Amino acid sequence: MSRLESFIRRLDAQRLCLDWAAGAVAARPGAVLELGLGNGRTYDHLRARLGAGREIYAFDRQLAAHPGSVPPAERLILGELRDTLPAFAARGVPVALAHADLGSGDVAATAALAAWLGPQLAALLPPGGLVLSDQALTAPGLEPVGLPAGVPGDRYFAYRRA
Amino acid sequence: MSRLESFIRRLDAQRLCLDWAAGAVAARPGAVLELGLGNGRTYDHLRARLGAGREIYAFDRQLAAHPGSVPPAERLILGELRDTLPAFAARGVPVALAHADLGSGDVAATAALAAWLGPQLAALLPPGGLVLSDQALTAPGLEPVGLPAGVPGDRYFAYRRA
Repeated sequence: MSRLESFIRRLDAQRLCLDWAAGAVAARPGAVLELGLGNGRTYDHLRARLGAGREIYAFDRQLAAHPGSVPPAERLILGELRDTLPAFAARGVPVALAHADLGSGDVAATAALAAWLGPQLAALLPPGGLVLSDQALTAPGLEPVGLPAGVPGDRYFAYRRA
Repeated sequence: MSRLESFIRRLDAQRLCLDWAAGAVAARPGAVLELGLGNGRTYDHLRARLGAGREIYAFDRQLAAHPGSVPPAERLILGELRDTLPAFAARGVPVALAHADLGSGDVAATAALAAWLGPQLAALLPPGGLVLSDQALTAPGLEPVGLPAGVPGDRYFAYRRA
Protein backbone atom coordinates (compact mmCIF):
# COMPACT_ATOMS: atom_id res chain seq x y z
CA MET A 1 0.00 0.00 0.00
CA SER A 2 1.43 3.41 -0.92
CA ARG A 3 1.66 6.16 1.68
CA LEU A 4 -1.12 7.98 -0.18
CA GLU A 5 -3.42 4.97 0.15
CA SER A 6 -2.47 4.50 3.79
CA PHE A 7 -3.20 8.17 4.48
CA ILE A 8 -6.62 7.97 2.81
CA ARG A 9 -7.46 4.89 4.88
CA ARG A 10 -6.43 6.66 8.07
CA LEU A 11 -8.61 9.69 7.26
CA ASP A 12 -11.53 7.44 6.33
CA ALA A 13 -11.18 5.63 9.64
CA GLN A 14 -10.98 8.96 11.44
CA ARG A 15 -14.16 10.19 9.77
CA LEU A 16 -16.02 6.95 10.61
CA CYS A 17 -14.89 7.17 14.24
CA LEU A 18 -15.84 10.83 14.60
CA ASP A 19 -19.29 10.17 13.14
CA TRP A 20 -19.71 7.24 15.50
CA ALA A 21 -18.54 9.24 18.52
CA ALA A 22 -20.80 12.18 17.65
CA GLY A 23 -23.73 9.77 17.58
CA ALA A 24 -22.66 8.14 20.82
CA VAL A 25 -22.68 11.43 22.74
CA ALA A 26 -25.68 13.00 20.98
CA ALA A 27 -27.96 12.52 23.99
CA ARG A 28 -25.26 13.33 26.51
CA PRO A 29 -24.67 16.89 27.71
CA GLY A 30 -21.17 18.21 28.14
CA ALA A 31 -18.36 19.84 26.23
CA VAL A 32 -16.16 18.22 23.61
CA LEU A 33 -12.37 18.49 23.75
CA GLU A 34 -10.31 18.51 20.57
CA LEU A 35 -6.79 17.71 21.77
CA GLY A 36 -4.51 18.69 18.90
CA LEU A 37 -6.35 21.15 16.67
CA GLY A 38 -3.74 21.06 13.90
CA ASN A 39 -5.16 22.06 10.55
CA GLY A 40 -8.65 21.99 12.07
CA ARG A 41 -10.22 19.44 9.71
CA THR A 42 -11.45 17.12 12.45
CA TYR A 43 -12.58 20.11 14.52
CA ASP A 44 -14.62 21.25 11.51
CA HIS A 45 -16.05 17.76 11.09
CA LEU A 46 -17.00 17.45 14.76
CA ARG A 47 -18.54 20.92 14.73
CA ALA A 48 -20.66 19.95 11.69
CA ARG A 49 -21.74 16.64 13.21
CA LEU A 50 -22.38 17.87 16.74
CA GLY A 51 -24.31 21.00 15.81
CA ALA A 52 -24.01 24.59 16.93
CA GLY A 53 -25.24 23.96 20.45
CA ARG A 54 -22.19 21.94 21.47
CA GLU A 55 -19.19 23.65 23.03
CA ILE A 56 -15.93 22.38 21.55
CA TYR A 57 -12.70 23.37 23.27
CA ALA A 58 -9.68 23.03 20.99
CA PHE A 59 -6.17 22.63 22.36
CA ASP A 60 -2.92 23.06 20.50
CA ARG A 61 0.65 24.07 21.14
CA GLN A 62 0.21 26.99 18.77
CA LEU A 63 -2.46 27.97 16.29
CA ALA A 64 -1.88 26.34 12.90
CA ALA A 65 -5.49 25.91 11.77
CA HIS A 66 -7.10 26.90 8.49
CA PRO A 67 -8.88 30.27 8.91
CA GLY A 68 -12.23 28.51 8.45
CA SER A 69 -11.55 26.18 11.36
CA VAL A 70 -10.41 28.51 14.13
CA PRO A 71 -12.54 28.15 17.27
CA PRO A 72 -13.87 31.21 19.12
CA ALA A 73 -11.14 32.72 21.30
CA GLU A 74 -12.81 31.61 24.54
CA ARG A 75 -12.65 27.98 23.42
CA LEU A 76 -9.17 27.99 21.89
CA ILE A 77 -6.57 26.92 24.42
CA LEU A 78 -2.97 27.32 23.32
CA GLY A 79 0.18 26.05 25.01
CA GLU A 80 1.69 22.77 26.13
CA LEU A 81 -1.05 20.22 26.79
CA ARG A 82 0.74 19.19 29.98
CA ASP A 83 0.01 22.68 31.28
CA THR A 84 -3.27 23.54 29.61
CA LEU A 85 -5.22 20.31 30.17
CA PRO A 86 -4.75 20.22 33.96
CA ALA A 87 -5.67 23.93 34.08
CA PHE A 88 -8.82 23.19 32.07
CA ALA A 89 -9.66 20.22 34.32
CA ALA A 90 -9.49 22.54 37.33
CA ARG A 91 -12.32 24.63 35.83
CA GLY A 92 -14.73 21.73 36.31
CA VAL A 93 -16.38 21.96 32.89
CA PRO A 94 -18.37 18.75 32.30
CA VAL A 95 -16.98 16.85 29.29
CA ALA A 96 -18.87 14.35 27.14
CA LEU A 97 -16.17 13.49 24.62
CA ALA A 98 -12.43 13.99 24.25
CA HIS A 99 -10.87 13.46 20.83
CA ALA A 100 -7.08 13.18 20.86
CA ASP A 101 -5.15 13.43 17.60
CA LEU A 102 -1.68 13.85 18.96
CA GLY A 103 0.60 11.53 17.02
CA SER A 104 3.63 13.22 15.49
CA GLY A 105 6.66 11.95 13.64
CA ASP A 106 8.48 11.75 16.97
CA VAL A 107 7.56 8.23 18.13
CA ALA A 108 9.12 8.54 21.60
CA ALA A 109 7.50 11.92 22.33
CA THR A 110 4.12 10.62 21.11
CA ALA A 111 4.35 7.56 23.36
CA ALA A 112 5.30 9.68 26.37
CA LEU A 113 2.41 12.07 25.73
CA ALA A 114 -0.06 9.15 25.38
CA ALA A 115 1.21 7.62 28.63
CA TRP A 116 0.62 10.93 30.37
CA LEU A 117 -2.74 11.58 28.73
CA GLY A 118 -4.58 8.37 29.74
CA PRO A 119 -4.64 9.07 33.51
CA GLN A 120 -5.37 12.77 32.87
CA LEU A 121 -8.48 11.92 30.88
CA ALA A 122 -9.55 9.26 33.36
CA ALA A 123 -9.46 11.95 36.07
CA LEU A 124 -11.12 14.63 33.96
CA LEU A 125 -14.04 12.68 32.46
CA PRO A 126 -17.24 11.94 34.33
CA PRO A 127 -18.50 8.33 34.36
CA GLY A 128 -19.71 7.45 30.87
CA GLY A 129 -17.50 10.07 29.20
CA LEU A 130 -16.03 8.95 25.88
CA VAL A 131 -12.47 9.15 24.54
CA LEU A 132 -11.47 8.76 20.93
CA SER A 133 -7.72 8.70 20.31
CA ASP A 134 -5.18 8.08 17.57
CA GLN A 135 -2.95 6.56 20.26
CA ALA A 136 -3.67 3.63 22.57
CA LEU A 137 -4.26 4.90 26.11
CA THR A 138 -4.11 2.98 29.35
CA ALA A 139 -5.38 4.15 32.70
CA PRO A 140 -7.46 2.70 35.52
CA GLY A 141 -11.04 3.70 34.78
CA LEU A 142 -10.68 3.86 30.98
CA GLU A 143 -12.42 0.86 29.43
CA PRO A 144 -11.84 0.00 25.76
CA VAL A 145 -14.89 0.41 23.53
CA GLY A 146 -15.34 -1.32 20.18
CA LEU A 147 -15.03 0.89 17.12
CA PRO A 148 -17.39 0.87 14.15
CA ALA A 149 -16.96 -1.80 11.50
CA GLY A 150 -14.41 -0.91 8.86
CA VAL A 151 -11.99 0.81 11.23
CA PRO A 152 -8.66 -1.01 11.48
CA GLY A 153 -7.92 -1.71 15.15
CA ASP A 154 -4.46 -0.16 15.08
CA ARG A 155 -5.43 3.27 13.80
CA TYR A 156 -7.99 4.50 16.28
CA PHE A 157 -8.92 3.69 19.85
CA ALA A 158 -11.97 4.43 21.96
CA TYR A 159 -12.53 4.28 25.73
CA ARG A 160 -15.36 4.98 28.09
CA ARG A 161 -14.86 6.30 31.62
CA ALA A 162 -16.13 3.60 33.98
CA MET B 1 -19.47 18.89 3.58
CA SER B 2 -16.89 19.26 6.34
CA ARG B 3 -13.29 20.13 5.53
CA LEU B 4 -12.33 16.58 6.54
CA GLU B 5 -14.78 15.12 4.01
CA SER B 6 -13.64 17.55 1.34
CA PHE B 7 -10.01 16.61 2.00
CA ILE B 8 -10.76 12.88 1.73
CA ARG B 9 -12.56 13.48 -1.57
CA ARG B 10 -9.62 15.44 -2.90
CA LEU B 11 -7.16 12.69 -1.95
CA ASP B 12 -9.44 10.02 -3.44
CA ALA B 13 -9.63 12.00 -6.67
CA GLN B 14 -5.86 12.41 -6.63
CA ARG B 15 -5.33 8.68 -6.20
CA LEU B 16 -7.76 7.87 -9.02
CA CYS B 17 -6.04 10.35 -11.32
CA LEU B 18 -2.55 9.09 -10.51
CA ASP B 19 -3.61 5.49 -11.15
CA TRP B 20 -5.18 6.55 -14.42
CA ALA B 21 -2.11 8.54 -15.49
CA ALA B 22 0.24 5.70 -14.57
CA GLY B 23 -1.79 3.41 -16.80
CA ALA B 24 -1.88 5.99 -19.59
CA VAL B 25 1.91 6.25 -19.76
CA ALA B 26 2.69 2.59 -19.04
CA ALA B 27 3.70 1.87 -22.62
CA ARG B 28 5.41 5.21 -23.13
CA PRO B 29 9.10 5.70 -22.33
CA GLY B 30 10.30 8.82 -20.57
CA ALA B 31 10.77 10.28 -17.14
CA VAL B 32 8.06 11.41 -14.75
CA LEU B 33 8.16 14.83 -13.07
CA GLU B 34 6.67 15.34 -9.62
CA LEU B 35 6.31 19.12 -9.35
CA GLY B 36 5.81 19.81 -5.66
CA LEU B 37 7.14 16.85 -3.67
CA GLY B 38 5.71 18.06 -0.35
CA ASN B 39 5.19 15.22 2.09
CA GLY B 40 5.98 12.75 -0.68
CA ARG B 41 2.73 10.76 -0.56
CA THR B 42 1.92 11.16 -4.25
CA TYR B 43 5.57 10.53 -5.15
CA ASP B 44 5.37 7.29 -3.18
CA HIS B 45 2.14 6.37 -4.94
CA LEU B 46 3.51 7.09 -8.40
CA ARG B 47 6.68 5.16 -7.61
CA ALA B 48 4.60 2.14 -6.53
CA ARG B 49 2.34 2.32 -9.59
CA LEU B 50 5.03 3.03 -12.19
CA GLY B 51 7.52 0.43 -10.98
CA ALA B 52 11.22 0.60 -10.26
CA GLY B 53 12.26 1.06 -13.89
CA ARG B 54 10.74 4.54 -14.17
CA GLU B 55 12.83 7.61 -13.38
CA ILE B 56 10.87 10.10 -11.29
CA TYR B 57 12.34 13.57 -10.80
CA ALA B 58 10.89 15.36 -7.80
CA PHE B 59 10.96 19.15 -7.51
CA ASP B 60 10.37 21.22 -4.41
CA ARG B 61 11.36 24.54 -2.93
CA GLN B 62 12.96 22.70 -0.02
CA LEU B 63 12.88 19.13 1.17
CA ALA B 64 9.90 18.48 3.45
CA ALA B 65 9.20 14.85 2.58
CA HIS B 66 8.72 11.89 4.89
CA PRO B 67 12.02 9.94 5.16
CA GLY B 68 10.39 7.02 3.32
CA SER B 69 9.57 9.20 0.32
CA VAL B 70 12.82 11.03 -0.40
CA PRO B 71 13.99 10.47 -3.99
CA PRO B 72 17.60 9.57 -4.78
CA ALA B 73 19.78 12.70 -4.68
CA GLU B 74 20.30 12.72 -8.46
CA ARG B 75 16.55 12.96 -9.00
CA LEU B 76 15.70 15.43 -6.23
CA ILE B 77 15.72 19.00 -7.55
CA LEU B 78 15.43 21.70 -4.91
CA GLY B 79 14.89 25.41 -5.40
CA GLU B 80 12.37 27.74 -6.99
CA LEU B 81 10.51 25.96 -9.78
CA ARG B 82 10.89 29.05 -11.97
CA ASP B 83 14.64 28.39 -11.86
CA THR B 84 14.82 24.62 -11.63
CA LEU B 85 12.28 23.60 -14.27
CA PRO B 86 13.84 25.63 -17.12
CA ALA B 87 17.26 24.27 -16.09
CA PHE B 88 15.87 20.74 -16.18
CA ALA B 89 14.25 21.37 -19.56
CA ALA B 90 17.65 22.41 -20.92
CA ARG B 91 19.00 18.94 -20.12
CA GLY B 92 16.71 17.43 -22.77
CA VAL B 93 15.51 14.48 -20.67
CA PRO B 94 12.46 12.96 -22.42
CA VAL B 95 9.38 13.25 -20.20
CA ALA B 96 6.28 11.05 -20.37
CA LEU B 97 4.26 12.56 -17.51
CA ALA B 98 4.36 15.67 -15.36
CA HIS B 99 2.31 15.73 -12.17
CA ALA B 100 1.88 19.18 -10.65
CA ASP B 101 0.57 19.51 -7.10
CA LEU B 102 1.37 23.13 -6.48
CA GLY B 103 -1.67 24.72 -4.87
CA SER B 104 -0.96 26.54 -1.62
CA GLY B 105 -3.07 28.67 0.67
CA ASP B 106 -1.89 31.72 -1.28
CA VAL B 107 -4.48 31.93 -4.06
CA ALA B 108 -2.75 34.71 -6.01
CA ALA B 109 0.68 33.05 -5.91
CA THR B 110 -0.85 29.72 -6.96
CA ALA B 111 -2.63 31.34 -9.92
CA ALA B 112 0.55 33.10 -11.00
CA LEU B 113 2.55 29.88 -10.79
CA ALA B 114 -0.08 27.98 -12.81
CA ALA B 115 -0.10 30.71 -15.46
CA TRP B 116 3.67 30.40 -15.75
CA LEU B 117 3.69 26.59 -15.67
CA GLY B 118 1.36 25.87 -18.61
CA PRO B 119 3.63 27.27 -21.34
CA GLN B 120 6.71 25.78 -19.61
CA LEU B 121 5.22 22.28 -19.75
CA ALA B 122 3.99 22.77 -23.31
CA ALA B 123 7.57 23.56 -24.29
CA LEU B 124 9.14 20.79 -22.24
CA LEU B 125 6.88 17.85 -23.15
CA PRO B 126 7.19 15.87 -26.36
CA PRO B 127 4.03 15.32 -28.43
CA GLY B 128 1.77 12.91 -26.54
CA GLY B 129 3.28 13.81 -23.16
CA LEU B 130 0.75 13.90 -20.34
CA VAL B 131 0.15 16.51 -17.63
CA LEU B 132 -1.84 15.97 -14.46
CA SER B 133 -2.36 19.08 -12.35
CA ASP B 134 -4.24 20.31 -9.31
CA GLN B 135 -4.52 23.67 -11.09
CA ALA B 136 -6.11 24.42 -14.45
CA LEU B 137 -3.38 25.17 -17.00
CA THR B 138 -3.67 26.96 -20.31
CA ALA B 139 -1.10 27.04 -23.06
CA PRO B 140 -1.05 26.57 -26.82
CA GLY B 141 -0.30 22.90 -27.39
CA LEU B 142 -1.85 21.63 -24.14
CA GLU B 143 -5.13 19.88 -24.93
CA PRO B 144 -7.53 19.00 -22.10
CA VAL B 145 -8.00 15.28 -21.51
CA GLY B 146 -11.01 13.76 -19.75
CA LEU B 147 -10.39 12.40 -16.27
CA PRO B 148 -11.59 9.05 -14.98
CA ALA B 149 -15.18 8.73 -13.78
CA GLY B 150 -15.67 9.80 -10.19
CA VAL B 151 -13.20 12.69 -10.29
CA PRO B 152 -14.88 16.07 -9.78
CA GLY B 153 -13.93 18.38 -12.65
CA ASP B 154 -12.76 21.20 -10.42
CA ARG B 155 -10.19 19.26 -8.40
CA TYR B 156 -7.87 17.80 -11.01
CA PHE B 157 -6.98 18.58 -14.58
CA ALA B 158 -5.23 16.62 -17.31
CA TYR B 159 -3.68 17.70 -20.60
CA ARG B 160 -1.87 16.05 -23.45
CA ARG B 161 0.83 17.75 -25.48
CA ALA B 162 -0.49 18.01 -29.02
